[in-house]
Amino acid sequence: MTEKDTLEAAITAQGDVVRKLKSAATKDKAKINEEVQKLLALKEQLKQCTVENAGEPAVPKPSGATESTPGNRNLSLKTPKGTRDYGPESMALRQRVLDQVIRVFRKHGAETIDTPVFELKEVLTGKYGEDSKLIYDLKDQGGEILALRYDLTVPFARYVGMGNVFNIKRYHIAKVYRRDNPQITRGRYREFYQCDFDIAGTYDPMLPDAECVKVVCEILSDVGVGEFVVKLNHRKLLDGMFEACGVPADKFRTACSSVDKLDKTPWAEVKREMVEEKGLTEETVDRIGEYVTLHGGPELVDRLAADEKLKQIPSAMEGLEDMRLLLQYCDIFQVANRVSFDLSLARGLDYYTGVIYEAVLLGSGAGGGAEEEEITVGSVAGGGRYDNLVGMFNPKRKQVPCVGVSIGVERLFSIIEARAGGKTRTNETQVYAEHSYKLNPKLLAQLQHCEEYQIPYAIILGDGELSRGVVKLREIATRKEEELPVDTFIEELRRRLSAS
Amino acid sequence: MTEKDTLEAAITAQGDVVRKLKSAATKDKAKINEEVQKLLALKEQLKQCTVENAGEPAVPKPSGATESTPGNRNLSLKTPKGTRDYGPESMALRQRVLDQVIRVFRKHGAETIDTPVFELKEVLTGKYGEDSKLIYDLKDQGGEILALRYDLTVPFARYVGMGNVFNIKRYHIAKVYRRDNPQITRGRYREFYQCDFDIAGTYDPMLPDAECVKVVCEILSDVGVGEFVVKLNHRKLLDGMFEACGVPADKFRTACSSVDKLDKTPWAEVKREMVEEKGLTEETVDRIGEYVTLHGGPELVDRLAADEKLKQIPSAMEGLEDMRLLLQYCDIFQVANRVSFDLSLARGLDYYTGVIYEAVLLGSGAGGGAEEEEITVGSVAGGGRYDNLVGMFNPKRKQVPCVGVSIGVERLFSIIEARAGGKTRTNETQVYAEHSYKLNPKLLAQLQHCEEYQIPYAIILGDGELSRGVVKLREIATRKEEELPVDTFIEELRRRLSAS
Repeated sequence: MTEKDTLEAAITAQGDVVRKLKSAATKDKAKINEEVQKLLALKEQLKQCTVENAGEPAVPKPSGATESTPGNRNLSLKTPKGTRDYGPESMALRQRVLDQVIRVFRKHGAETIDTPVFELKEVLTGKYGEDSKLIYDLKDQGGEILALRYDLTVPFARYVGMGNVFNIKRYHIAKVYRRDNPQITRGRYREFYQCDFDIAGTYDPMLPDAECVKVVCEILSDVGVGEFVVKLNHRKLLDGMFEACGVPADKFRTACSSVDKLDKTPWAEVKREMVEEKGLTEETVDRIGEYVTLHGGPELVDRLAADEKLKQIPSAMEGLEDMRLLLQYCDIFQVANRVSFDLSLARGLDYYTGVIYEAVLLGSGAGGGAEEEEITVGSVAGGGRYDNLVGMFNPKRKQVPCVGVSIGVERLFSIIEARAGGKTRTNETQVYAEHSYKLNPKLLAQLQHCEEYQIPYAIILGDGELSRGVVKLREIATRKEEELPVDTFIEELRRRLSAS
Repeated sequence: MTEKDTLEAAITAQGDVVRKLKSAATKDKAKINEEVQKLLALKEQLKQCTVENAGEPAVPKPSGATESTPGNRNLSLKTPKGTRDYGPESMALRQRVLDQVIRVFRKHGAETIDTPVFELKEVLTGKYGEDSKLIYDLKDQGGEILALRYDLTVPFARYVGMGNVFNIKRYHIAKVYRRDNPQITRGRYREFYQCDFDIAGTYDPMLPDAECVKVVCEILSDVGVGEFVVKLNHRKLLDGMFEACGVPADKFRTACSSVDKLDKTPWAEVKREMVEEKGLTEETVDRIGEYVTLHGGPELVDRLAADEKLKQIPSAMEGLEDMRLLLQYCDIFQVANRVSFDLSLARGLDYYTGVIYEAVLLGSGAGGGAEEEEITVGSVAGGGRYDNLVGMFNPKRKQVPCVGVSIGVERLFSIIEARAGGKTRTNETQVYAEHSYKLNPKLLAQLQHCEEYQIPYAIILGDGELSRGVVKLREIATRKEEELPVDTFIEELRRRLSAS
């Protein structure tokens, strides 16, 4: 049994598990979600296994040449673990999605920058908490100690701090590297694109923060991934809420990381973790539980502003005033119907200091496959304000406040790819007029090439056409042919192409 | 004296050397070229030194915060050796050049692919001869042994061989990594773009080879780098010529690498190397010397086909027939005036098996600075046919013949950047209508922003305009302002923008 067979059998079995759960009288959504995640992970593994064995497009293996019997070769024919090649179809689809994303960034006046794929190791040290073990180190070859970039935020902060830049609105689309376990993920590779939009500088309160929300909404609408919601919260409010509930200050961050699990884990489980593992009292955790179920709009801001316990805590009130202003701007930017002030949003990263965001897809637009249709497929964008990071990279420790979002383009690629289903055009050819390079190319073979590559028109020019002073124009989709005078057909073609 | 001061002094001194050589009665072109190269290398170092210290845009250092006195910081504020950040201006310029290059690739029906930034080390082993020491290895972190890609050709061959791809015309634009000494180079970094166009598959003889020449000519014309010539030669002819001159077969490759130096080194020096270091007889080397000074067109093919010594060597005759056909196709493709059949072209890489190319810039279009104007600035594209590489990556050792060219885009960027001189637009904004984020933004400051960023128009909408039902439209370049009715100004703006 090959790896592929094993995976296919596991997928069939897991599909049965999911179906059984869904048809049960009492539906356990969290359980269903969990099992669907497993199913998706298996499918991803199968996809990657096919990619690794056969490249792309996936070609049936020549018999006798299996992965486990190297036989006549002494070289591992694969890409490194957790990586893949991208063939013409994937690339064409990715480029189209990125073009839509970039259009939005540019509409907002953003510039782009680039930084090296590796950084001095010390630049990355101490920025990612326990995830630092996932950093790819380069070998010490007798020079500087280097590591591949883990995200685009730290290189951006280094760029801003080191270059004494005080104002910049930039986007950066580039690959980052994490030695994560690719098997436990869905569509997650060790090499993947990040796509970040950040605004650095001192501006009127909440205006850049609101623009980030607007940018996310425009991108998700333009790319067309169905319904979504941008959850909003504020670190100062979260910390104030923990304080109000009786969490000791040195446990704010760890309480945060428990709350962060609420999108995937039921409250009962999160509560157990906070009480048993993090040592909070049951009373404290129950109070937290009352807050984190709250979500809404400006009316929730009013309600919390009147909350007797929160009123005692200045930072909570500061966070609330920020939220009030942010929601006003969201209204002005006409995205009020897309946002939700959600007290359960926490975000994992330590460096956020103000507003935090996370966009999630809702409902049936999210998946593509039948199993996923009722499930929130998770985050497609996230970010927040980080006012204290740039100073670490400035010779005079000068801070430059920043706010930004990272668009989960790999998720968007997967969704659009699943939806595209069939063929994606990989070329931009409008009219095929080349003589194919194939040895002894037959006309039929050349026309088949046009159909396969979805080229709209072909020009046929043989001895007969030449003698009659015409060219034959074939519309590939309909296979309709007609003759046009040789001296006017270019004009005629231009007309038809601009009409279509 | 800082590093910057040292470099500036060295540049002044080297400039004097070049001027003296140029004004001498007897001009030694090779010597002048060599000294100009040194000058350019120094300028590059200065540029990099500025970039490394201050990022981009280069900002004067705050006094007291110099590179050599870390003082209040414990972090090296630099990018890794031989790398740099690219700020908005560099990025905008690079993107414009790449767009022109990609347009040509697509016009020729090429698709694009991508491969991981690192490969299994064994994939790269044994492909680059003694340059293998320049490969960046990743640290062994308890998994596979990986290394950063060194070029795009070997990953392409792996992709084709491993994926059982038998026909593909692809381009690939991506960064590659070489632990070269960045100080001895001009505009050469350890992380740099390669930009490759390759055609894999079995086709009619010399047709894909000729398309590569055509692609190079179109790109260099479109980007506009002045006059250039594409030198052509053939490995089989070169080997046949060495055989005819009495070079032992096991010294063909080393003789090749000596001949390859002729574009930078005078014949006398190359001859000395071949006799003293490579042990060829003086008679053999003199014979080689007669051949390698030859360059021309189809008439040179005829002349060599009639050469008594070459006629004895079948592979030489095969190479010549290929060249004859290639030159015919170049004529049909209307690039005959751009190519030169040049027997001194050898190319360093071992894996070429047929036609080889190298495009060089000529004359004053090449440099930009006054010093360089009469000098050939060297290669801006190169490539050739490699029919025996893919088989190394195919499970059944099946070969797929390939031919390709690599466009020296980093050189093109430098040339265009030097020519651009002043400001490059970094945004695509046509009409500025945002309320600047700056705290208490003044109107004047916002208009200055438009001038700085070369935004064509600004809309001004104050209380006065609102009450009168108009908007004020300002043309930024002329500072001309006029009022337009609020309900028709969008249409009017569209008209003006599409007219300009």
